[in-house]
Amino acid sequence: MKFDVLFGGVSFEHEISIVSAVALKKVLGENVGNFIFLDSSHRFYLIPSDSMKSKLFSSGDYKKCTEIFLQRGAFVKKTFFGFKPIMPHMIISLIHGADGEDGSVSALLDFYHLPFIGPRIESSVMSFNKAFTKIFAAQRGVKMLDYEILTRANPHLKHLTYPIILKPARLGSSIGVSVVNEEKELDYGRDLAFEYDDIIVAESFKSGVKEYNLAGCKVKNGSQNEYRFSIIEEPSKKELLDFERKYLDFSRTAQVVQADISLTLAAKLQENFIKLYENAFEGALIRCDFFVIDDEVYLNEINPIPGSMANYLFEDFVSVLTELACNLPKKHSIKVSYKYIEQIHYAKGK
Amino acid sequence: MKFDVLFGGVSFEHEISIVSAVALKKVLGENVGNFIFLDSSHRFYLIPSDSMKSKLFSSGDYKKCTEIFLQRGAFVKKTFFGFKPIMPHMIISLIHGADGEDGSVSALLDFYHLPFIGPRIESSVMSFNKAFTKIFAAQRGVKMLDYEILTRANPHLKHLTYPIILKPARLGSSIGVSVVNEEKELDYGRDLAFEYDDIIVAESFKSGVKEYNLAGCKVKNGSQNEYRFSIIEEPSKKELLDFERKYLDFSRTAQVVQADISLTLAAKLQENFIKLYENAFEGALIRCDFFVIDDEVYLNEINPIPGSMANYLFEDFVSVLTELACNLPKKHSIKVSYKYIEQIHYAKGK
Repeated sequence: MKFDVLFGGVSFEHEISIVSAVALKKVLGENVGNFIFLDSSHRFYLIPSDSMKSKLFSSGDYKKCTEIFLQRGAFVKKTFFGFKPIMPHMIISLIHGADGEDGSVSALLDFYHLPFIGPRIESSVMSFNKAFTKIFAAQRGVKMLDYEILTRANPHLKHLTYPIILKPARLGSSIGVSVVNEEKELDYGRDLAFEYDDIIVAESFKSGVKEYNLAGCKVKNGSQNEYRFSIIEEPSKKELLDFERKYLDFSRTAQVVQADISLTLAAKLQENFIKLYENAFEGALIRCDFFVIDDEVYLNEINPIPGSMANYLFEDFVSVLTELACNLPKKHSIKVSYKYIEQIHYAKGK
Repeated sequence: MKFDVLFGGVSFEHEISIVSAVALKKVLGENVGNFIFLDSSHRFYLIPSDSMKSKLFSSGDYKKCTEIFLQRGAFVKKTFFGFKPIMPHMIISLIHGADGEDGSVSALLDFYHLPFIGPRIESSVMSFNKAFTKIFAAQRGVKMLDYEILTRANPHLKHLTYPIILKPARLGSSIGVSVVNEEKELDYGRDLAFEYDDIIVAESFKSGVKEYNLAGCKVKNGSQNEYRFSIIEEPSKKELLDFERKYLDFSRTAQVVQADISLTLAAKLQENFIKLYENAFEGALIRCDFFVIDDEVYLNEINPIPGSMANYLFEDFVSVLTELACNLPKKHSIKVSYKYIEQIHYAKGK
């Protein structure tokens, strides 16, 4: 199976999406189809595989590539006689942050009937907005750290004690995030976060807790649903991953080793993953980042489009993608009817 | 100001959207711009105002109208020389149910930079999925009736006592909804709801409670935000509004009278409305349906695209729409940068 990689997007993570796509080119090898770039003015370009270097984009030279357009069932390019479809493959939605993870591009692809690997609208919204992730996880019985929501109208902490961490509700890659150790630092952290969003999630901040990342997806084996899990990684320690570090993270292609944890804990992490994934993230390969505190598992965040698709956590990444591609969620079929309009016209004798 | 009305959509509420659009034609009068119909295969058609009769759609004759396409900044029609934009006005998104209220069409309009009145992606998801509305309201301190989530894997009630009401999580207009009075009726109700969704919301059912509907939106007056509220309606009593009745509801254009309630209760309803609307539904005119039990206000549901835009609840509907159109939410501006890519190239000496 071949995969088209859709990347870029109007997002603070625009350039890490490019890095992610370059990494995926290497990982997908002969399974690579088209590279489709979404630029800063929401135009799509078809990028030849051998031009896939980050400089093409930062220089603006991508504009010399063919502009393509979304139509029902395919991306198309203009020809002298009209439009011609680009050979479609299974799309991997690899736009990190806004556009990709907020549900916009998923809505577009669904609307135009293009099959894709990635989160659907609902699960995008629940994972992209950290205030919603809190209530989503709670409804599914998954613990998260204690939190408060701050808005411009209600910017004051009520019950959290320092240190806390402040996060703009709808941004990834640690942008606008700060750790606040005492009250006098609060103003600065709040101002920083409000630069990016009108809603801030304030959380208890616990330094030195164990972190574990687990990726996976649901596939079909015969008539049975099964989960395909990655190995569990213990990411390297740092108080806070800064943007530059995360940036390098997105270009990862080297396999990592399984964290040295008990089978019981591994099973607990998988169990929490399933609680979050089931009836929500079908069609996506996601990575859940967990904390473990006193043997209890807490969700830190859900990455519905993880950097370079967390390929480095899977032994046979392409097989997992292929299985996932064969098990995309189907929308409940809706047949438009005119039953009541017809009844009314019948009653009126028209 | 003129308004374009976007209606139809692939939804069980397709035909009530048509009825709603016909009603709006009457209400908007000289403020009517274009009518844009989204058909059952996700194609858009430009419908001349004087053809706006429900039969045009049920007969399929709308296909004789001009097909139009979404492009950046406008709908366009094909001409001999390419595409020509249709004169754009402020769009009213009037697609009820799927497509319109699930966030899809909002995502499209936003992506292609067309200004519109309607819920944005996030607030669509939170109001369309009744399981999410429960946690959304709770996070904002608005009460709702006690509930449980049923799925195919976990279809059993745990703590609710009969009678209960079962609702497919993502459907409006009472489709698939049933009241279950005792355990032996549960199977039937559950099967009915599962026909429409994999997630069911089961709620305590209280017959004979007071119901009040309140519509409104946030506008700007100078530099101040203000709410424009409708009158409060006490909808006529019935145990359960059936689809046909709701259908007729969508064609309403006659003004209704304010419910006979105390100023205190009216203020309470408005206060709950604001808790739900603020930082979520900006850009939309919504209708919140409340229950009042023992002087406590409970949210029943949020209609982010109410039937015929709840015009019949406003004294000067067109003014409210116009004010709202002048206060659409702006996305946080995101400037795409290539800072890190440039740093890497610099470090590599390229």
